[in-house]
Amino acid sequence: MNALLVVAHGSRRQQSNDEVFQIADKLRVSCHDDYSIVHSGFLELASPSIPDGIEQCINDGATHITVLPYFLNSGRHVVEDVPDIVKTVSQQHPGVDIVIAPHLGASPLMVDLLINSAKSVPRPHIA
Amino acid sequence: MNALLVVAHGSRRQQSNDEVFQIADKLRVSCHDDYSIVHSGFLELASPSIPDGIEQCINDGATHITVLPYFLNSGRHVVEDVPDIVKTVSQQHPGVDIVIAPHLGASPLMVDLLINSAKSVPRPHIA
Repeated sequence: MNALLVVAHGSRRQQSNDEVFQIADKLRVSCHDDYSIVHSGFLELASPSIPDGIEQCINDGATHITVLPYFLNSGRHVVEDVPDIVKTVSQQHPGVDIVIAPHLGASPLMVDLLINSAKSVPRPHIA
Repeated sequence: MNALLVVAHGSRRQQSNDEVFQIADKLRVSCHDDYSIVHSGFLELASPSIPDGIEQCINDGATHITVLPYFLNSGRHVVEDVPDIVKTVSQQHPGVDIVIAPHLGASPLMVDLLINSAKSVPRPHIA
């Protein structure tokens, strides 16, 4: 079974963490045919941790987990911290494939998303 | 003339700031018909600042500026800091309309972007 794990930084502000859970909820509805398991994990400041999120996926029966870094930039968290944590947990579960998707800013759809956001607010006229 | 101002937090890591400039470059190409001016501005740690980015848009002839918050969550920066800065600069330019678009995490396209990212990495089988 395929799982998605949405991995975010985590915040002291619970509303920001809740927004990550809400994204996971939307994914659970939208891509159930491809990914029957969806969980969240936080690098710091919030629960569950990334290892706990991976364990939740495995406990639900995941044999393949795609980690989705909910980060905009390819900073240290994306390049080092998340891969290091995933590698450590992965070694404890040799029967489970775990892959890491690109961070959000690398998506070819980001420009479309930004244009869509821009057009969602009123403009008095077109250039 | 309509302008887009991509507003990001700013980082000590130049590569993260460059990724914001690259997003602005892509927007400049993709939406030239609707927004003939595209600039970037940073809340802190990088240049140009948000006020300087707004000034660049106005100097280029912008009469309407859509500020695009390149932030994932509706934290203090999105809810207070960016609106406060925009309001202050806006009062100095009463002839220019400045509106603020929703932050990225609020976009209805975010789920599609995440699913697209997940599917960009190989999976051995479907659940």
